[in-house]
Amino acid sequence: MTTPHLPALLISIPEGVIDLGWGHPSARLHPAAALAAAADYALGGESPIPLQYGAVQGFGPFLEALADFLSGQAAVGGPVKPETLFLTAGASQAIDMAATLFAKTDDTVYVEEPTYYLIGRIFLDHGLNIIGVPTDADGLNTDALAEMLSDGAIPAPRLLYTIPTYQNPSGAVLPLQRRRHLIELARRYGFTVIADEVYQLLHYGPPPPPPLAMLDDAPDAAGSGAGVISLGSFSKILAPGLRLGWVQASPGIIGRFVDSGLAFSGGGLNHFGATLAHAMLELGLLSDNLDNLRRVYGQRMDAVGDALSTELAGLVDFAKPGGGYFLWLTVRDGADTVALLPTANEAGVSYRPGADFSASGGFGNALRISIALYESEELAVAVRRLASILR
Amino acid sequence: MTTPHLPALLISIPEGVIDLGWGHPSARLHPAAALAAAADYALGGESPIPLQYGAVQGFGPFLEALADFLSGQAAVGGPVKPETLFLTAGASQAIDMAATLFAKTDDTVYVEEPTYYLIGRIFLDHGLNIIGVPTDADGLNTDALAEMLSDGAIPAPRLLYTIPTYQNPSGAVLPLQRRRHLIELARRYGFTVIADEVYQLLHYGPPPPPPLAMLDDAPDAAGSGAGVISLGSFSKILAPGLRLGWVQASPGIIGRFVDSGLAFSGGGLNHFGATLAHAMLELGLLSDNLDNLRRVYGQRMDAVGDALSTELAGLVDFAKPGGGYFLWLTVRDGADTVALLPTANEAGVSYRPGADFSASGGFGNALRISIALYESEELAVAVRRLASILR
Repeated sequence: MTTPHLPALLISIPEGVIDLGWGHPSARLHPAAALAAAADYALGGESPIPLQYGAVQGFGPFLEALADFLSGQAAVGGPVKPETLFLTAGASQAIDMAATLFAKTDDTVYVEEPTYYLIGRIFLDHGLNIIGVPTDADGLNTDALAEMLSDGAIPAPRLLYTIPTYQNPSGAVLPLQRRRHLIELARRYGFTVIADEVYQLLHYGPPPPPPLAMLDDAPDAAGSGAGVISLGSFSKILAPGLRLGWVQASPGIIGRFVDSGLAFSGGGLNHFGATLAHAMLELGLLSDNLDNLRRVYGQRMDAVGDALSTELAGLVDFAKPGGGYFLWLTVRDGADTVALLPTANEAGVSYRPGADFSASGGFGNALRISIALYESEELAVAVRRLASILR
Repeated sequence: MTTPHLPALLISIPEGVIDLGWGHPSARLHPAAALAAAADYALGGESPIPLQYGAVQGFGPFLEALADFLSGQAAVGGPVKPETLFLTAGASQAIDMAATLFAKTDDTVYVEEPTYYLIGRIFLDHGLNIIGVPTDADGLNTDALAEMLSDGAIPAPRLLYTIPTYQNPSGAVLPLQRRRHLIELARRYGFTVIADEVYQLLHYGPPPPPPLAMLDDAPDAAGSGAGVISLGSFSKILAPGLRLGWVQASPGIIGRFVDSGLAFSGGGLNHFGATLAHAMLELGLLSDNLDNLRRVYGQRMDAVGDALSTELAGLVDFAKPGGGYFLWLTVRDGADTVALLPTANEAGVSYRPGADFSASGGFGNALRISIALYESEELAVAVRRLASILR
């Protein structure tokens, strides 16, 4: 009897299936050679810096280089100061920390309907109550939110989790006016907005409106707990395995992260990863990589959009997003995308059913597909297979 | 006007001072060349694996290699199965996660008096109440703990945090019998023991008793919440900047970590770091590094022990530990090691005062020194400077 081996990776796909359900980048887009060069750069001089306990806020030279890099991005829309950044081991960790630092057991968190399918687990681990807020083609419906907030019968939120740009799963982009409205509501009702903006830099045409933290011009909302935490990630623009991300917020909120026991005790949350990403920036390799991702993903988004329009016209509703990983397909009323999954797998295609993205059991006739893992040709084949089972 | 630069590292030491207060390894002990070789090995083949989202429990081939490595360690004392391990981004993260997963706001955690000076911050971030348990030369006083647990007037613990091996700050080692007693108490009273065992492998002579998780032979205590979580770390045997550690526990407790939103959403907690440490193991470089650390730290511990016996005889009480980073010095009654710090700095030496390690304001006449950051010669000079101010 041999012991079964433990898996190396999160992903697992049945033979013969094109699984559009995974939001993973394809292997050929991992800049392994660039990261090998970065590791040489960081470790080659046998500098003691990359391997020692790091600064609590994050590796200083990298915070400064990252602020410069972000300041030059059209999707950021203005200058970013390094003191408004805090480095994390990925956006998931930032969300988990925000739940620790800004909420307590039995507090309430509002999320979008639909939202990122794993977010519920993080908040439930913290003993939070989850309430969904309606969205539409422009993302979070801030008028509906305002009504919920003024309704004394609904528990008031301590946190609100939103994905304002190229939403996961819907692909929607929150317009500037709604962004300002959301911040105004956060200030008025004293809750903290966690803005998961990991797709912010992945625009394939005109840039989206700025990160929420760029619009939060209150001098310092930390004392009141009202404010915005914008989350960025290197998972989508460099490599998920690195586990590196950043928080952008007012210095008061950043100070709360820096004062956390977790960040202080560990000497920062991912010091070595930060020295590697710093080397990528210094060597000019991060911009190159981002340019390549925008070009490749943009082509894939076009290919899928074309295939959907050709193969699934009249069968599904969808809007092709201007960036990010995901398209959200709504099938005819009464369709059940969970029940359809075995049939889809038999036809050699898979997706993530809409029900996974709902806190209240909605979206049973929707599904999410991703452009990140497969090339345009495979995506087109997958859409044809999808059409064969929806027709 | 130029903006002051943000720091690169956690550590900061005034010019001319030998600061024995930091528990950081010295720069020359960072295996930068070995890690550069590991990075080449992991990335050189342009394998897609190191940069993708990793398995939730941790990179499988590394879990298996780590289990083998630990099984061969005298300080572990028996075979370790990979399914009893879970990879973290350092012991601090494991502690933070345990507080999230096994406690809620306003629960009580017991800690040793004295204990790791940053642990309080982590537990306070989670809204926990902290109560100290007495220790003696053999570490946690489990008889005193038993009395506290049977005393209805003291809040019952949900968690108990202990450093059983080469305790930080005291250097004490919990004997086998007390380890068994502690586990028995955890089962009887239904609390979770977080055993911070990051110095377990750093013995400079005979090995310490086994990790607590090796002694917890209940089939699966996860349901009851009673059990032991042993924490290991690569910070002390490889490099702190990597942020890599492991949890060892029963499969039920491991399952709770694997089911966490944080670990699932990120694809493991430090996948890339795990592929590097895996490469170190495959290349035989981790054992080499550990042998070197034991040799160098053992010499330093001897040098400091000799210098303390010679220079501070009659002025301080101390016991030279058989492993780890720290020595705990108790000065005469009435001495105030916080008040002495400026004088010490003027004399070119520093330390961490005893009061930092107490939840209740004790240990005002004690201080902690570390052997990790300086060479034997500098350590001897520092002890002479210390003697000059304590005499």
